[in-house]
Amino acid sequence: MSILRNIKLTIEYDGIYFAGWQRQARQRTIQGEIEKAIEKLTGGKVSLIAAGRTDAGAHALGQVANFKTKFNLSLEKILPALNSLLPREILIKKVEQVPLKFNARSDAKSKVYRYCIFLGQTALQRKYLWPYRFAVELNRIRQATRLILGKQDFSSFCVAKSKKESNICKIEKASWKKSGDILEFEIEGDRFLHSMVRILVGTLLEVGREKITPQEFLRILKAKDRRRAGRTVPACGLYLMEVKF
Amino acid sequence: MSILRNIKLTIEYDGIYFAGWQRQARQRTIQGEIEKAIEKLTGGKVSLIAAGRTDAGAHALGQVANFKTKFNLSLEKILPALNSLLPREILIKKVEQVPLKFNARSDAKSKVYRYCIFLGQTALQRKYLWPYRFAVELNRIRQATRLILGKQDFSSFCVAKSKKESNICKIEKASWKKSGDILEFEIEGDRFLHSMVRILVGTLLEVGREKITPQEFLRILKAKDRRRAGRTVPACGLYLMEVKF
Repeated sequence: MSILRNIKLTIEYDGIYFAGWQRQARQRTIQGEIEKAIEKLTGGKVSLIAAGRTDAGAHALGQVANFKTKFNLSLEKILPALNSLLPREILIKKVEQVPLKFNARSDAKSKVYRYCIFLGQTALQRKYLWPYRFAVELNRIRQATRLILGKQDFSSFCVAKSKKESNICKIEKASWKKSGDILEFEIEGDRFLHSMVRILVGTLLEVGREKITPQEFLRILKAKDRRRAGRTVPACGLYLMEVKF
Repeated sequence: MSILRNIKLTIEYDGIYFAGWQRQARQRTIQGEIEKAIEKLTGGKVSLIAAGRTDAGAHALGQVANFKTKFNLSLEKILPALNSLLPREILIKKVEQVPLKFNARSDAKSKVYRYCIFLGQTALQRKYLWPYRFAVELNRIRQATRLILGKQDFSSFCVAKSKKESNICKIEKASWKKSGDILEFEIEGDRFLHSMVRILVGTLLEVGREKITPQEFLRILKAKDRRRAGRTVPACGLYLMEVKF
């Protein structure tokens, strides 16, 4: 009889081919595809726990998930075996054995997301970045971005229908980088509310476009009211970069 | 009665949504979509002449095409009007009026193509670059690449069934650039044979992988025999960057 092991996977995927992370009965999802591959490999039912469930269309370079199995195969062999069973739009980058009590969701200390914007019009790669046609003032955006740092209530930047016991998140880092026509927003926090990164980006871009002042942005944040914030930008520009434990 | 004008378009497109450039009866092609948009705008039949017909899956950042019309609308208005009629995966970047004798195909002095390779495994953006899992020696590749410069017969790097009166092309520039995991090949020439860039890349990568020596590469070039060269790499990594007149 083999012993039970807890396996941690680091995963990259192209979100445009899947209906999001979470397993669904009639749709192709990332969780569903990976569970199917693990079950084919190990012969037993399995349930994957992910650090963060990404929406349909969103991508990941460093999603982390774990599952328990009694299947007896060396770690070095699990990685190529799983990749050979997976669609090529999902790539297992790392396989590690972790203590049985490890849980990818509850043990995640922070997650890093990136949002990619193309400044101008583009016909290419529209499912990997979001084209934004308006001129933005990066200094104004950065000024408003500093206001989201620290531990705060982010109710204004959360899908209204999403109910959580608390809307408090601690944002450790948030920065903007521009290289050529590409503008990238990167944010690290202990937790994120539903669509939070996408609503933050939509609202911060309005600050950059001078439709909102940084002072008004602060009032929106304090209002704890989704109706005050800007639009939710599309999922296609969003990447889960890294999960820290 | 309006006078006849010759209109030159500079076009960007995402090749993954189309069955190549050339108009086809039952398939969605780039030429077909642009002609449909022009005909909707001008109300008359039109025939677009492109500098280079790209294959299914190949992209363009600077394709050039021209058409003649008696339709009377200022150049500044043609650009947004056409873009509003086109699918968002095709973008007209520039509209110019040119002399009536201008022909985008026969007047093109040279074309610049780029081929994008991802060194390693990737799940993301697989339709915009070609993942190559083998280690390559860039100096060897560059040594062989110098051999294709100048005016030569490229029959070894041309789809065998493609019949042209001459397989002689003049390559002005050919270079490799590596940044991070991305390897890019850029080539400028007066003309290109069918699949020529893709067969050159496939063969040059074999030089980099030390399966072929640069001396053997020279013998392949001199052999004028497609069977001697390497594989044709996929169209998805190929971009028509610029057409010079």
